Amino acid sequence: MRERLLAAEKVTAIRWQSGNLYLLDQRCLPLEEQWLVYDSAATVAQAIRDMVVRGAPAIGITAAYGVVLALRARLAAGGHWRLALDEDFQILAASRPTAVNLFWALDRMRERLNALSALPEVELLAQMEAEAIALHEADREANLTMAQFGVDLIRKHKAGPQHLLTHCNTGALATGGFGTALGVIRAAYLEGLVERVHADETRPWLQGSRLTAFELAGEGIPVSLNADSAAAHLMKSGAITWVIVGADRITANGDVANKIGTYQLAVLAMHHGVRFMVVAPSSTIDMQLASGDEIPIEERAGTELLEVHGQRFAAEVEAFNPVFDVTPADLIDAIITEKGVVERPNAEKMAALMSRRRLH
Amino acid sequence: MRERLLAAEKVTAIRWQSGNLYLLDQRCLPLEEQWLVYDSAATVAQAIRDMVVRGAPAIGITAAYGVVLALRARLAAGGHWRLALDEDFQILAASRPTAVNLFWALDRMRERLNALSALPEVELLAQMEAEAIALHEADREANLTMAQFGVDLIRKHKAGPQHLLTHCNTGALATGGFGTALGVIRAAYLEGLVERVHADETRPWLQGSRLTAFELAGEGIPVSLNADSAAAHLMKSGAITWVIVGADRITANGDVANKIGTYQLAVLAMHHGVRFMVVAPSSTIDMQLASGDEIPIEERAGTELLEVHGQRFAAEVEAFNPVFDVTPADLIDAIITEKGVVERPNAEKMAALMSRRRLH
Repeated sequence: MRERLLAAEKVTAIRWQSGNLYLLDQRCLPLEEQWLVYDSAATVAQAIRDMVVRGAPAIGITAAYGVVLALRARLAAGGHWRLALDEDFQILAASRPTAVNLFWALDRMRERLNALSALPEVELLAQMEAEAIALHEADREANLTMAQFGVDLIRKHKAGPQHLLTHCNTGALATGGFGTALGVIRAAYLEGLVERVHADETRPWLQGSRLTAFELAGEGIPVSLNADSAAAHLMKSGAITWVIVGADRITANGDVANKIGTYQLAVLAMHHGVRFMVVAPSSTIDMQLASGDEIPIEERAGTELLEVHGQRFAAEVEAFNPVFDVTPADLIDAIITEKGVVERPNAEKMAALMSRRRLH
Repeated sequence: MRERLLAAEKVTAIRWQSGNLYLLDQRCLPLEEQWLVYDSAATVAQAIRDMVVRGAPAIGITAAYGVVLALRARLAAGGHWRLALDEDFQILAASRPTAVNLFWALDRMRERLNALSALPEVELLAQMEAEAIALHEADREANLTMAQFGVDLIRKHKAGPQHLLTHCNTGALATGGFGTALGVIRAAYLEGLVERVHADETRPWLQGSRLTAFELAGEGIPVSLNADSAAAHLMKSGAITWVIVGADRITANGDVANKIGTYQLAVLAMHHGVRFMVVAPSSTIDMQLASGDEIPIEERAGTELLEVHGQRFAAEVEAFNPVFDVTPADLIDAIITEKGVVERPNAEKMAALMSRRRLH
């Protein structure tokens, strides 16, 4: 299956070329394909904050490259660069609060930096660049592994083409490669397990209409877009077998923070006997937090709800715009990571997963 | 309470003046306040189809005036006007399929027409005009009665200011007067029972952002807009005491067709122990249909999901756009009509309600 999946990799959101970071501006998709170039931690942090790049794994990868850019600038400036670099780490860490992959990537880059502290500066920079690239590559690999696990799980419960429902965008645009939830869906399609993908439009940022539909339609995968509020109506029809979503942070007990609307999909899936799958690399798992109650939930500007593409359509009112929510573990049938699959997650199973070495 | 409610009537969507029908173009709200004038059944039907006017009770009232306009035109044209008028009835009836108030209003106008068949033509027209105005007035009265029933029910379960959640627009713009669900909410505010109203933005047509928020903010009622997919997250916080919605058709067993998203709110309310109230005049009740399975669900153009105000933002994909869904009676705590309140609705209680004479 691996080769077919690799052959299906088409879209990419993050490019590292000749020591520069290029990000596909996801705010303009699908109407415009515009690449922006970055050369400092501050501008990278701003790109993450402004959602030029989004998706938990993609944010982590971007931040890792941000550290490389920061290191190069600090080394060039000379002086006490380690102290100055600390500031860059802080700026990057402050860009968005919920997705833990960001902090995970920064921690990994810092550990590497510390381990290499004896190296000459030029070599240090080269090694750190290699580390960011490795982290990016590992995410691609994790996508492929998860896709295979997910396909096996879908097939175990039902053979043949079926209807899957997804939320937000968890594809190539959200990751370093193939996608998490959308990677599973794409792989399931290649394996003959998909009759149709139903994509929530995913208000307020419309990741579903703008990105997921764009990715799937571009690959000829049958996709129907629906209002987020039509999900239960769809499930009631009996056609949906799985809801498949990504994650921005998973706590030690298996609770999942993900795009606003995920929690209600999980409640609705349970009500309708539809299975619920979360797909995320192990870098999404935060064993420091006991449960989802401890996850900081980002609230973004209310204007995101009151306008589309800068065009105002709503009344001048207060808007409550939490962009993530928390799905308790007991509503989840399976968490798929590159380390393995956890069915009916709980604290014990999550701890066992994290103590495992990678299977592939 | 009645006087305070009447004093709070501010917005109106339908005006009958000097024998002409004026509709506030709700497609342009809240950015523009534009009134359109109508003088034929065909243009009125088009206005209903295009959602210049929307909301089940408002559609019924509009259709009644449409019959008056049609009758005037047919009488003026002379000849076999009764046969020609039948066509107008059919054109009006075909404008939208789900809300039964439309058919109810047309049936009532036809019955009246038949009862008056012996009258001279000029008098007939005057009587039919009076009938449409009476139907409009009765809807206003029904709103006031329902508002009082709803307030009593809210107060019975909890005294003092609370958080209410509503979906779509069921206010003055959707009815002949004060509103159904939003009428209850407005009255509850006047009675000190509202700390904050949470309004779902209500994709795809954004009735929540454009109309409900507009109505409530205009009256100084604290309102927070949220993405439809944030409803469960809001309920989980524990603050919401009631979800209060309108209806487009209620069947003999108490099942309720209403704006897409209503069904999932009802499932989520049950999951979170939040009460669920449906507010609709008895003209919404269709005793001819045994259950919600028989209600025709309108599907509108997918472009409603792919663009806002004519501005395209989504990929070129298929969109599934059912604009109503069905909430089964067993998820509903109370149906409020002007004839009385049905708690935990079922076929027996609905039949008892419909056999009752109006209480006020």
